[in-house]
Amino acid sequence: MERIAFIGTGVMGRSMAGHLLKAGYELTVYNRTKEKAAELIEQGAEWADNPAEAAAGADVVISIVGYPADVEATYLGEKGVLTTMKKGGVIIDMTTSSPILWQKIAKAAAEKGVDAIDAPVTGGDLGAKNATLAILCGGDEKVFEKVKPILAVMGKNIALFGAAGAGQYTKLVNQIAVAATMLSITESLIFAEKAGLDTKLVYDTIGGGAASSWSMVNLLPRVLRGDEAPGFMVKHMVKDLRLSLEAAREMKLELPGLVLAEKLYAELEAKGYADKGTQTLISWYRNQ
Amino acid sequence: MERIAFIGTGVMGRSMAGHLLKAGYELTVYNRTKEKAAELIEQGAEWADNPAEAAAGADVVISIVGYPADVEATYLGEKGVLTTMKKGGVIIDMTTSSPILWQKIAKAAAEKGVDAIDAPVTGGDLGAKNATLAILCGGDEKVFEKVKPILAVMGKNIALFGAAGAGQYTKLVNQIAVAATMLSITESLIFAEKAGLDTKLVYDTIGGGAASSWSMVNLLPRVLRGDEAPGFMVKHMVKDLRLSLEAAREMKLELPGLVLAEKLYAELEAKGYADKGTQTLISWYRNQ
Repeated sequence: MERIAFIGTGVMGRSMAGHLLKAGYELTVYNRTKEKAAELIEQGAEWADNPAEAAAGADVVISIVGYPADVEATYLGEKGVLTTMKKGGVIIDMTTSSPILWQKIAKAAAEKGVDAIDAPVTGGDLGAKNATLAILCGGDEKVFEKVKPILAVMGKNIALFGAAGAGQYTKLVNQIAVAATMLSITESLIFAEKAGLDTKLVYDTIGGGAASSWSMVNLLPRVLRGDEAPGFMVKHMVKDLRLSLEAAREMKLELPGLVLAEKLYAELEAKGYADKGTQTLISWYRNQ
Repeated sequence: MERIAFIGTGVMGRSMAGHLLKAGYELTVYNRTKEKAAELIEQGAEWADNPAEAAAGADVVISIVGYPADVEATYLGEKGVLTTMKKGGVIIDMTTSSPILWQKIAKAAAEKGVDAIDAPVTGGDLGAKNATLAILCGGDEKVFEKVKPILAVMGKNIALFGAAGAGQYTKLVNQIAVAATMLSITESLIFAEKAGLDTKLVYDTIGGGAASSWSMVNLLPRVLRGDEAPGFMVKHMVKDLRLSLEAAREMKLELPGLVLAEKLYAELEAKGYADKGTQTLISWYRNQ
């Protein structure tokens, strides 16, 4: 069984690494803040002081860190994975990050005989905890098949969408769609409230028809109950929408809905709502 | 059983009036173009030369016409319904129209002892044909209960949302939400295509998650098969989004997503796509 180095033991990573441990993989972990890896170390994971040390001797490196800059440092930095990773090894980044950056990392990896899979996920904290994540992959098909059993320990819906970066592009497709459905429930709700309608009755009635969305069915009822707990944080939405904009510009695409969504969420972030749930957009409209 | 005057026998109205005839109501019909009422006349409906003549002797008037100007002419015009409608009668407008205009018509009706219900629908041609429309009502509760059996002949999900205009406001809530989910599938698809992804695989994978919407599940597969048949026409979307904008401005609401959607669909309409389906927005982005 492969030896895995797992880099990034935040809320998502901790659950995912835990599943790998339980499945019997030997795990070395690294995280910027060591305390967040404490539970995994208790469960038998080895600690490494930096990505290079974690990758030494590993067959597979998996990372799920914060921002593209963190991904770049993890793989290409002075103490990065590619300084020690053995020939024939596989690196898998599960961070939602830049497809263009990943293509650069995959190229650098290939030059050292290391294979690369980008594999961002959807399904959030709960998907990570219950190992029901969708895992959106890019890379070579043979490499994908080789690591699929490892991915299957952490998720359910695992697919390959194309060459290096394709997983990231697919994740951004998802985020572009999510942002617009957030606009859909936000602006329709604000209109309904201002018109003095019984909003619960309105959404019970229209929620089954052409206006319906996952957000309308799953997120809006929580909003109507006053539940503002973050499912997905504003600052992460801003990150993902900026990545999408950057990729769109690279492809010379104009996406005005995406531009608008990024602007609105960036305003929210700037006003101190970075760590709130994305549904905070509704309060923001309410107070305009 | 009530005598009903039915005004507006276009694609939707024809099916709806047909259900009323079959249910045994005596029907008088009026339409700007008489040929479109021919089938109903064959089935036993009486013809009237104008709204006033149609309303004379009717207990209930139902209208489903084109634009707010048509609604206004139907009720308040020189040969309009309110010139002949008897005291104690009920007028029901099922056009998607202006809530503010309907409040004005309801007030004029009340001065003549006539009750008013606004009752726009969702569910489209198919919903009209199969009598499965959702009917979104505004008006007095007692009046609503009185006419509900008539509405139940034409639809399934029938609810009262508040005073005069509340049905129209609810329909606009629906349209605001629909427009943003159209942006959601359009911009995500354009991004996916440009990134060279297998779009069918992408939407099969993300279509069950947080990015999902009715449009993604029901409309997008048709687009991916190249089916451009109009489910809902661009010109009607423009009409509904302008009504929404007008109502939002009246309520002093800024809804930038709605502003953007109206702008995009108005551009489409201006470029000669008025009678195409709303999914034409996707071709429009493709050719930018």
